[in-house]
Amino acid sequence: MSPTGRKDGEGERYRAILETAARLICERGYEGTSMQEVAAACRMTKAGLYHHIQSKEQLLAAIMSFGMDMFEQQVLVQVRDMPDALERLRECMRRNILLVTRDLSKEVTIILHEHATLHGEARDYIDGRKKRYVRFLETSFAEAVREGRIRAVDPTVAAFSFLGQVLWIYKWYRPDGRLTDEQIADGMVDLFFGGLAVAERQSAPGPRGQEPEAAPLTPVVPLFAGKP
Amino acid sequence: MSPTGRKDGEGERYRAILETAARLICERGYEGTSMQEVAAACRMTKAGLYHHIQSKEQLLAAIMSFGMDMFEQQVLVQVRDMPDALERLRECMRRNILLVTRDLSKEVTIILHEHATLHGEARDYIDGRKKRYVRFLETSFAEAVREGRIRAVDPTVAAFSFLGQVLWIYKWYRPDGRLTDEQIADGMVDLFFGGLAVAERQSAPGPRGQEPEAAPLTPVVPLFAGKP
Repeated sequence: MSPTGRKDGEGERYRAILETAARLICERGYEGTSMQEVAAACRMTKAGLYHHIQSKEQLLAAIMSFGMDMFEQQVLVQVRDMPDALERLRECMRRNILLVTRDLSKEVTIILHEHATLHGEARDYIDGRKKRYVRFLETSFAEAVREGRIRAVDPTVAAFSFLGQVLWIYKWYRPDGRLTDEQIADGMVDLFFGGLAVAERQSAPGPRGQEPEAAPLTPVVPLFAGKP
Repeated sequence: MSPTGRKDGEGERYRAILETAARLICERGYEGTSMQEVAAACRMTKAGLYHHIQSKEQLLAAIMSFGMDMFEQQVLVQVRDMPDALERLRECMRRNILLVTRDLSKEVTIILHEHATLHGEARDYIDGRKKRYVRFLETSFAEAVREGRIRAVDPTVAAFSFLGQVLWIYKWYRPDGRLTDEQIADGMVDLFFGGLAVAERQSAPGPRGQEPEAAPLTPVVPLFAGKP
């Protein structure tokens, strides 16, 4: 086997360890999962596991980092270049909801639930990536207000309301519940943006959001004076 | 000292143990907190602690139960008899936000964060109380739709969107941030209900929500067919 082949094999092994550890941590919590249990679930010795992973905290950081990669690929990269800020935010909410409810729910749950578990550099790194998402949302809300696409709202309040609505889903969603995840996504996008959108409400007969004739209902001013 | 006096003293002691344990669990997580640490923080021996508390899980259940008592007193009892469903929901959101950001944030954080930690009867009991709140919200949203106070939304989607927006706050709110909790509460109530309210938008010149002439914009039908 070529060195590349070996490397790929090791990459796969590493990935499988992250998968297995993510499942355990998701079920039992980080503090409730021992490295011995991770090793056993991977059918490895503890020493064998430490060949791939430096520490339990590094394992958690690697799972979160993988989850953030997937989030960025499946949500952020897909929407960030959409020219219309309102459509960008709608599509972003929809994709983020489906990310929480589908394949990556383990890694995403860990990112969301173990938000205070990491320390030091690893925590700064993950928190930095989360903050970039918050800033992306704030910027998009500010842009949507500025361009008269939604009524005036504080971009920070809007960003954290958006995130709360979307990310809380991991606490209550069950795949066998009354509502499908598509229905939840459609319902939440309608609930959140149906009442915010300005242009759509005023230019209903024309093509969606094409006419710039729909002026904002409210002047573009910050809602809050803000604390220093 | 009378037997009653002794009982009160024991009640105070018990309450102080819950307070201290709540602070530790809030900082380190349930799995990351040992009974030895709880005892030390209470300036008691472990045996002395077990005089008041049967087990670590019972301690967690007692903290959550206390948090639910406070939530019900400060939020649910204050709003449940308000005749107007929209005003009831607005006031409920406002009070719930301030509960998360203020005095009871430790107990509330534990209820929110350790949602999957309890087992058996204790979990059923706490989950039952949480579910009563979800049902109260669903019923209020359904009533607000039926009475033409808000546009047609699925009550379950609305209830969980409301909860996500409000309860996620424990993850990001900092008392020294740019926005006060009052500003966050006002901003979120406006964001959520400003776009939902029907009567207010249509009867703006008259007294708020007094005229029943404002018919709902959309017929009152469930948004989703629903899964069996």
